[in-house]
Amino acid sequence: SYETLTEKGTSWTVVTPIIFSYKVTETHGLLDPCNATLLTGHAHEPQTSADTLRIPSKPIKRFVVVDQEVYRIYGSQITKYFEVNNVTCKILALPTTEENKSMEMALKILEELNSFSIDRRAEPVIAIGGGVCLDIVGLAASLYRRRTPYIRVPTTLLSYIDASVGAKTGVNFANCKNKLGSYIPPVATYLDLSFIKTIPRRHISNGLAEMLKMALMKHKELFELLEKHGQHLLDSKFQSDSSVFSVSSQSASRSTRLAIVTMLEELAPNLWEDDLNRLVDFGHVISPALEMRVLPSLLHGEAVNIDMAYMVYVSRESGQLTEDEKNRIISCMVGLELPVWHQACTMELIQSSLQDRLKHSGGLVRMPLPVGLGQAIFNNTSYEVLTSAYEKWC
Amino acid sequence: SYETLTEKGTSWTVVTPIIFSYKVTETHGLLDPCNATLLTGHAHEPQTSADTLRIPSKPIKRFVVVDQEVYRIYGSQITKYFEVNNVTCKILALPTTEENKSMEMALKILEELNSFSIDRRAEPVIAIGGGVCLDIVGLAASLYRRRTPYIRVPTTLLSYIDASVGAKTGVNFANCKNKLGSYIPPVATYLDLSFIKTIPRRHISNGLAEMLKMALMKHKELFELLEKHGQHLLDSKFQSDSSVFSVSSQSASRSTRLAIVTMLEELAPNLWEDDLNRLVDFGHVISPALEMRVLPSLLHGEAVNIDMAYMVYVSRESGQLTEDEKNRIISCMVGLELPVWHQACTMELIQSSLQDRLKHSGGLVRMPLPVGLGQAIFNNTSYEVLTSAYEKWC
Repeated sequence: SYETLTEKGTSWTVVTPIIFSYKVTETHGLLDPCNATLLTGHAHEPQTSADTLRIPSKPIKRFVVVDQEVYRIYGSQITKYFEVNNVTCKILALPTTEENKSMEMALKILEELNSFSIDRRAEPVIAIGGGVCLDIVGLAASLYRRRTPYIRVPTTLLSYIDASVGAKTGVNFANCKNKLGSYIPPVATYLDLSFIKTIPRRHISNGLAEMLKMALMKHKELFELLEKHGQHLLDSKFQSDSSVFSVSSQSASRSTRLAIVTMLEELAPNLWEDDLNRLVDFGHVISPALEMRVLPSLLHGEAVNIDMAYMVYVSRESGQLTEDEKNRIISCMVGLELPVWHQACTMELIQSSLQDRLKHSGGLVRMPLPVGLGQAIFNNTSYEVLTSAYEKWC
Repeated sequence: SYETLTEKGTSWTVVTPIIFSYKVTETHGLLDPCNATLLTGHAHEPQTSADTLRIPSKPIKRFVVVDQEVYRIYGSQITKYFEVNNVTCKILALPTTEENKSMEMALKILEELNSFSIDRRAEPVIAIGGGVCLDIVGLAASLYRRRTPYIRVPTTLLSYIDASVGAKTGVNFANCKNKLGSYIPPVATYLDLSFIKTIPRRHISNGLAEMLKMALMKHKELFELLEKHGQHLLDSKFQSDSSVFSVSSQSASRSTRLAIVTMLEELAPNLWEDDLNRLVDFGHVISPALEMRVLPSLLHGEAVNIDMAYMVYVSRESGQLTEDEKNRIISCMVGLELPVWHQACTMELIQSSLQDRLKHSGGLVRMPLPVGLGQAIFNNTSYEVLTSAYEKWC
């Protein structure tokens, strides 16, 4: 900190960095009792820590929040995992749906956490579920004793790609999506594609929307993978047949890895979202209001896709996409079984969503738009373009 | 971020710093409509920002939370300040007492903030009040849209010295003090000693306890100032008579400045409290449980002082203080009109409070203890010393 003398006294300026460090780790057989990842994968020196954790005088404790639906399918495996590893644990199964994503549920988790009592430095809270579960538990952990480490285990394709990578936690408030939250990353995220095999087809499409977002913004190969193998990914539920070595059987690991890497490239240098020019906002300009308005009829990725589909028309209208590129993108969306239009997405809703991004000079709206396939720019778009794109879109 | 290949897949490690920057600024006449500090003092370039803020098309908005008691005394001045400066503002007066320091009150503030609606990047939330008010508003602001800047205006001596300087926000939860919160510093804190003139004498003693803490840990001159001028500071309520230039008339500005500087030295490099060896924890080992147990009969600083008084006996017992030094410290506490003992501070309460600090090897307790006047060490203290010190203290 440094001192400045002013006319009215002294002023001290404190400039101090906080170093965030977290891991995103692919694994398989996460719930296999022999896989130590869930217990010690967050430590910097896994072996040493595993030993330290096994001091006989101090049993390992873990507080685990699991989505109710995930618990229905994996509950006995989760219980067994901790039992076999001699972990004293509290497993809390909760209905973590978008409608329940509230501070009330975060407080409920906090009450249970407080009465279970953990060593806040050595025993991270574990969240197993979809994005809503990971977001609420992340918020609860970041509030508890001002910051308790937590681990994310995404069980849906959407959260595998999206909530797994960044620092955001949150709950809905006053009917606004994620209005309350924090930017505190988990100490670790564990990615295990085998959870996806029990995800309903519609929810796999839901996750594919976020993958398509990264493809359109940053990665042509990923776009082409989704374009060619989208149906295969939906049919196989991202499960690889290890006996076959074809491009299609590798498409699950290849496409998820590309999506994670492109996400990390965008999020890691801008963890607090200080830079307002964010490619990851593509599809997230109109969709929050749309999703909340029609709740629960659209899934998050569906609302995102409707937003992206409209923006593709905006991009076409302002000359950044050819007619062919536009058609390929829309066909790819249809192939991924995602909606490309919704009647509740009115011009009035679009206008009110864009209000925040309106530049004061000249009434232009600044937002990310695709340019060709796999690239993007931040464009200042006029209302005329937005309106004519809307008419063509409808 | 960097990639590692493991047997089970890829692992990405993200290491990224977040830079916190905040100002602690002395001023006087903060509520004088000609003093621009409250509106633009947080900006890096005050002049430019003041101009930017005055774009006629966009009126300045401020959301202000004021402690109810402070509002009773300063409400009309605050209202007038914003009126004269043409600021559209919402002033929310709340009973921010220790008993009300809850997530419910934070949510109440958030509801009002959400319906008033501010530009989250340019219009910081302002908190005017004691530590409880600053802590609750800080938490609400840090949650709103994942991080909304806020400004602290401490109006009590305790918060002037303590809550003003660090990054901590918080509310009580499950009968535990500050169990929920965040480490998000304000963008600015404005220090104006003139608020202290309306503070009751007992609450000035309350703040003197935190000053004495820093004196004992780090600064002999500050200790001697409090020892010699404690009564004058209480009598004058930290108001300087500008017509007299004596050591005693300068003691208010000198002592508060030394307390702030020593606090900043300790807090700024350890904003997230990653380092567990914290001198600022002196007086805060037993006092949180004591304060909560007898609520509302002890003020925070009073509980802190009782904790410190006991620790002085521990320090004497382990040979770090001479009998004379011990007696000078206890006399100084009495001179500052602070309690040095409490019947609810039992050996059982002391033991349970020290549990967290117990080292596993050998049953020693690690905590900061004064060494002479104005210095400290982290000592590993045995239960025998704790018990015999307790007996002498009683």
